Amino acid sequence: MSDLLLIPGPIMVSSAVEEAASIQSLAHTSPEFVKIFQGALQKLRTVFQTSNAGDQPIVISGSGTLGWDIVGNNLLKSGDSALTISTGFFSDSFAECLKTYGADVDVLKSEPGKVVALDKIESQLKSKKYQLITLTHVDTSTATLLDLPSITSLVKKVSPETFIIVDGVCSIGCEEFKFSEWSVDFVLTASQKALSCPSGLSVSLISERALSYALSNESTHGFYANLKKWIPIMKAYEAGVGQYFATPSIQLVNALNVSLGEILSYGLEARIAKNKKTSDQFKNNLKQLGLTLVSEDSNSAHGLTAVYVDQPGKVISSLKSKGIVIAGGILPGIKDKYIRIGHMGISAIDDNLHHIDKVFEAIKESI
Amino acid sequence: MSDLLLIPGPIMVSSAVEEAASIQSLAHTSPEFVKIFQGALQKLRTVFQTSNAGDQPIVISGSGTLGWDIVGNNLLKSGDSALTISTGFFSDSFAECLKTYGADVDVLKSEPGKVVALDKIESQLKSKKYQLITLTHVDTSTATLLDLPSITSLVKKVSPETFIIVDGVCSIGCEEFKFSEWSVDFVLTASQKALSCPSGLSVSLISERALSYALSNESTHGFYANLKKWIPIMKAYEAGVGQYFATPSIQLVNALNVSLGEILSYGLEARIAKNKKTSDQFKNNLKQLGLTLVSEDSNSAHGLTAVYVDQPGKVISSLKSKGIVIAGGILPGIKDKYIRIGHMGISAIDDNLHHIDKVFEAIKESI
Repeated sequence: MSDLLLIPGPIMVSSAVEEAASIQSLAHTSPEFVKIFQGALQKLRTVFQTSNAGDQPIVISGSGTLGWDIVGNNLLKSGDSALTISTGFFSDSFAECLKTYGADVDVLKSEPGKVVALDKIESQLKSKKYQLITLTHVDTSTATLLDLPSITSLVKKVSPETFIIVDGVCSIGCEEFKFSEWSVDFVLTASQKALSCPSGLSVSLISERALSYALSNESTHGFYANLKKWIPIMKAYEAGVGQYFATPSIQLVNALNVSLGEILSYGLEARIAKNKKTSDQFKNNLKQLGLTLVSEDSNSAHGLTAVYVDQPGKVISSLKSKGIVIAGGILPGIKDKYIRIGHMGISAIDDNLHHIDKVFEAIKESI
Repeated sequence: MSDLLLIPGPIMVSSAVEEAASIQSLAHTSPEFVKIFQGALQKLRTVFQTSNAGDQPIVISGSGTLGWDIVGNNLLKSGDSALTISTGFFSDSFAECLKTYGADVDVLKSEPGKVVALDKIESQLKSKKYQLITLTHVDTSTATLLDLPSITSLVKKVSPETFIIVDGVCSIGCEEFKFSEWSVDFVLTASQKALSCPSGLSVSLISERALSYALSNESTHGFYANLKKWIPIMKAYEAGVGQYFATPSIQLVNALNVSLGEILSYGLEARIAKNKKTSDQFKNNLKQLGLTLVSEDSNSAHGLTAVYVDQPGKVISSLKSKGIVIAGGILPGIKDKYIRIGHMGISAIDDNLHHIDKVFEAIKESI
């Protein structure tokens, strides 16, 4: 029997998704696969909450990281200014990636587990013209959740031309997210988080206005992170027509279509509410043990928990000996002081599995 | 029951590989997954036929196309000259990709199904300094096989500093290929061809000398096609240590490890010989029907067959109605005049499946 996997991704997937990942190969332009890919792309519109047909969902073989490259390669030109709101390791890495594309990146950084004050963001946005702002909805290193509606409405007010970029890797599928209502221009995620699928797919959505910029951006490089190559393919598949640029991951796209179907059939809002409930209970239980969370209550993510413990290595080993896999810290400065427990997908949704009860009991016994 | 899939990739995979693609998720740095990834990387050394420990196998979530970007981003600088030996659509696309990275690319092009004469390559190499030469071992658009030992020994003689780059997408696993003996610097392939795995992994090997260049190349962009990010990760996994940059595709890497295991357990040489036998028989049978191959006998690939037919669309539909999926032409100029049949992996190896008999009979009935 395999371990109970409760890291902040990859997460355990349902048996239907497991099976979907092992269908026999299909031709990438066959009617059978076109229907699968079309289904996945269409469902993503609902999951990302877009109401504009001109926005375009994108699914490419790759990790979440590929989404950063898509932004760097397509949505700016070398020398452009970018603003990163950093709540941890992944926010900072996104900024690093953009720098390699020649962006001049300013980083507004919070203390671990805290967020950057709105007025600081406001004055920074007023100080110069930013091509884009990156917001890591949930920084997986600290379990810090941004108040996206407040920040995005501020950006629209102060600097409406700035592209709003959201790293939704650990949020899409388990946190409230409204692409159109919040005027987001690009959101990226990965298949192995709350989308509840195996790892291996970069999943994103680009707004009509950002797409228009990307398709006319003459400074893009290469093929693989170049939307000029991918967008016609995505539009074709979504319209029900197979078109070739690079071979998609047949089995993973099939698994994604099934996992998105499960999310929508449970109900997106219900799923997000259930994630919140699971997370709140787990966090409260940990606090009752006298433990301190890395992220403050008001900005704690609902798909994972980061909590300080005296001896993280000992806790992780003790849980592993009981067949439960959690993750260690990753934020420089405090990385050896805390543990991270993922609770997305079936682990958060299906109480009968008792995943969260089991990990809580095991933590209680090992601290 | 699903169709019999006989396109030049994705190909049908064995039941063990199918199952391997649907294991429950594992933590990407868990001892269990590290062992799987290590196994896949180690087996690739044998499959690519490298004898130098300083060469490095690379497995990244992506399609074969990503390999072109890895070359463009890491192995040249903007303004460098590159030489492409083109035997079809994929050779030309590789050149296009390199151009987007600023390379000045000369293309020596063959007639469809023919190869470029060695003396032409020689005089071109003598005409200027080339940073790299790209050789598409098998161009999947025409089923044309290059005589790699002759070309690579010519390059070593005439221009030893030029990096020898091989696109082995439709060759690795079914054609003789000797990385070290032929002094190749970079070879790229994709999981869904003769490696007999689901699609979704970019698989490559870089030589020690090219790696040394790549790690000191200051003109690279981004993260996802940047070897400075990936090489430490690959070295760590191969040494049995989990290290994080971007989440690997857990299930696909497991499937790759199983498929590589099957290739090596059959015997690499035996497998290549069996592919040749299957291909020769199939091609001879088609010729006995009075059909003409796109590629000449002396340079015909062994993993697929491209053959002229009067009405390709009709043949493809007729086969599809019988549950057999083959591919159409793709080379501009002749694309509406031929069909392509893939015969890699289990379809070529396991006579008991009668895949090739079935497709031959169906073609015979429909031309």
